[in-house]
Amino acid sequence: MRTQVAIIGSGPSGLLLGQLLATVGIETILLDRVSPEYILGRIRAGVLEDGAVRLLDQAGAGARLHAEGLIHDGFSLAFSGQDHRIDLHGLTGGKRVTVYGQTEVTRDLMAGRAQSGALSIYEAEAVTLHDFDRDAPYVTYQKDGQTHRIDCDFIAGCDGFHGVSRKSVPETALRTFEKIYPFGWLGLLAEVAPVSPELIYAHHPRGFALCSMRSMTRSRYYIQCSVDETVDAWSDERFWDELRRRLPAHHAEALRTAPSFEKSIAPLRSFVTEPMRFGRLFLVGDAAHIVPPTGAKGLNLAASDVHYLFEGLREQYRDGSGAGLEAYSAKALARIWKAERFSWWMTSVLHRFPTMGDFDQRMQEAELAYLAQSQAASTALAENYVGLPF
Amino acid sequence: MRTQVAIIGSGPSGLLLGQLLATVGIETILLDRVSPEYILGRIRAGVLEDGAVRLLDQAGAGARLHAEGLIHDGFSLAFSGQDHRIDLHGLTGGKRVTVYGQTEVTRDLMAGRAQSGALSIYEAEAVTLHDFDRDAPYVTYQKDGQTHRIDCDFIAGCDGFHGVSRKSVPETALRTFEKIYPFGWLGLLAEVAPVSPELIYAHHPRGFALCSMRSMTRSRYYIQCSVDETVDAWSDERFWDELRRRLPAHHAEALRTAPSFEKSIAPLRSFVTEPMRFGRLFLVGDAAHIVPPTGAKGLNLAASDVHYLFEGLREQYRDGSGAGLEAYSAKALARIWKAERFSWWMTSVLHRFPTMGDFDQRMQEAELAYLAQSQAASTALAENYVGLPF
Repeated sequence: MRTQVAIIGSGPSGLLLGQLLATVGIETILLDRVSPEYILGRIRAGVLEDGAVRLLDQAGAGARLHAEGLIHDGFSLAFSGQDHRIDLHGLTGGKRVTVYGQTEVTRDLMAGRAQSGALSIYEAEAVTLHDFDRDAPYVTYQKDGQTHRIDCDFIAGCDGFHGVSRKSVPETALRTFEKIYPFGWLGLLAEVAPVSPELIYAHHPRGFALCSMRSMTRSRYYIQCSVDETVDAWSDERFWDELRRRLPAHHAEALRTAPSFEKSIAPLRSFVTEPMRFGRLFLVGDAAHIVPPTGAKGLNLAASDVHYLFEGLREQYRDGSGAGLEAYSAKALARIWKAERFSWWMTSVLHRFPTMGDFDQRMQEAELAYLAQSQAASTALAENYVGLPF
Repeated sequence: MRTQVAIIGSGPSGLLLGQLLATVGIETILLDRVSPEYILGRIRAGVLEDGAVRLLDQAGAGARLHAEGLIHDGFSLAFSGQDHRIDLHGLTGGKRVTVYGQTEVTRDLMAGRAQSGALSIYEAEAVTLHDFDRDAPYVTYQKDGQTHRIDCDFIAGCDGFHGVSRKSVPETALRTFEKIYPFGWLGLLAEVAPVSPELIYAHHPRGFALCSMRSMTRSRYYIQCSVDETVDAWSDERFWDELRRRLPAHHAEALRTAPSFEKSIAPLRSFVTEPMRFGRLFLVGDAAHIVPPTGAKGLNLAASDVHYLFEGLREQYRDGSGAGLEAYSAKALARIWKAERFSWWMTSVLHRFPTMGDFDQRMQEAELAYLAQSQAASTALAENYVGLPF
């Protein structure tokens, strides 16, 4: 088989790239080692920046998002028993975020790809990337007991942190930066109205909590937990009790509960690989970088990577100019480091760290109190939360 | 002897409080365990917020400051080989800072006190505070082989971190918060024009550096050093070489040197005591809190403490109302915690910590790069640097 761009990974970044390329007539084959059902079964975040929404529109995948997504003009920072609203819309001159689950984004993009007739190969085993440091790269994989080969011009590595793409690059060609946080997030999904129409990021001496949602009838709640916890230790009742303790009283009283239908613990990590291009292989999204979930930047960063790569590929095929592709890594990384900083900062200010002393606790409280009273500091928070420009 | 307010400590906060009280006819006696010459020999910082300048004017001690002080409308943040100006004046709607050595402030206040004829007792030994938790406090001290006693209405503890005032309070009545930073500042004074007309705060992988000044012919330079360094290990030449390495090239080339006439190493510490009032004893300035020198908040915080205490005492003597004195600790601490946060943050973002990894280093660089490009983040920095309102 032959295609122009082989896309490794069928998460939202690989699918979005494929759909954007389809709009300008660039052909792709998409490969994934798992099934579409498995991908759609993964629970992920769901706060989209305007930039990501625009890209989904551009890819023709925005219709349901606009019909069902929730527009959020602000969120709440809860600390010291009170909550303080961050007026995203007012502070950023009209920007906002859209709450729409990543699973739904993936579903919409998959539907678009199916309609376009572009080839997607799922449950491809032993995916291997070849010769991407030369002029004629190709990808091999096994399926139905046979080895297959896809020749291509470029490979887009959209296969996440554990995927094969980054691992295919010689270690000496990579520089990696990493921080592991000494806690995790215990998340719970329940079919119940959210405690508040906007997200609540709660700072508490017992640890961080987040009240989020997928819709006005489906709530997503998180509490900071220790890294060595297991989900089994957390009955629904224990979860709700702990969540209530970490919220200001009026929210704790208003909280409605329902049996959970998903509960899981996620570790928190910051990770960046440099560079993001090796010859004809481009790393995109989680394959190159991870942020802790505080601030919801993961999917949005994948979207800006896709934007830069799409523009570079379009320029390459339309004008024969490689300038956009040459600049891909530097452009993407400039935005990534800013979002890494923001995610690290928001994680640092809101979580209880095991090594924290009384002074550190007061520094967090002072930072939150300052944020709540300073227009400038609130604006800095808001402009990062809605997303810095691409 | 009897007075209305006994002031312990003859640094700038004790002197400023005395001069302000004199303007409204409240009598003070000032006690210090050392001599005026010793106090004037101490080298301290020299960046004054507008609020501190107004208080010095109010105390009648602003004339020389206005004649000789340098008005600074901005400073430079140097990182990644470049420098970026923080336009204090533009970002804060017209505020600025005044560079004028703390030693000069003290000298001017001492002259004012001498002129007013108020009693100051220097080289007072064994200063002891009595009965400040009752209605009739008094202070005893020894001088010329005799024990003396000063009866008073109130005691102002302006005698710094190591002074007797805070130590006179029962430990169980105090809550303290502390952070010791794992590095110091090696400072040097030289009779030479400063490398730049504005201060330069330099971030560098080798450690922080600060180019400051006392006048346009006297420079004050600092470099971050390890806590176990000794001044003897630092010849002038070694100091200048290290400073040059940490500055952007154009500054390093422009740096003019001269023999140092003072060189010393200062530790960096954050410290706060709560509360700041115990009956009729009020802690003021360094007696209650310490900030690391990054951001120059120490003297300015002492000034705001003095302001709150002066207003409380004036209200007490004029109206017979203790409301201002009751509120002293809470009002002072609200401002102190914000300045503690700012000083901690500025210290954290600019210094090399021994435990820092590559990721942390990138977080500092990303924070500085973000500061340089974001109007909101620059404004947050500027509004803290010029001083939050009293």
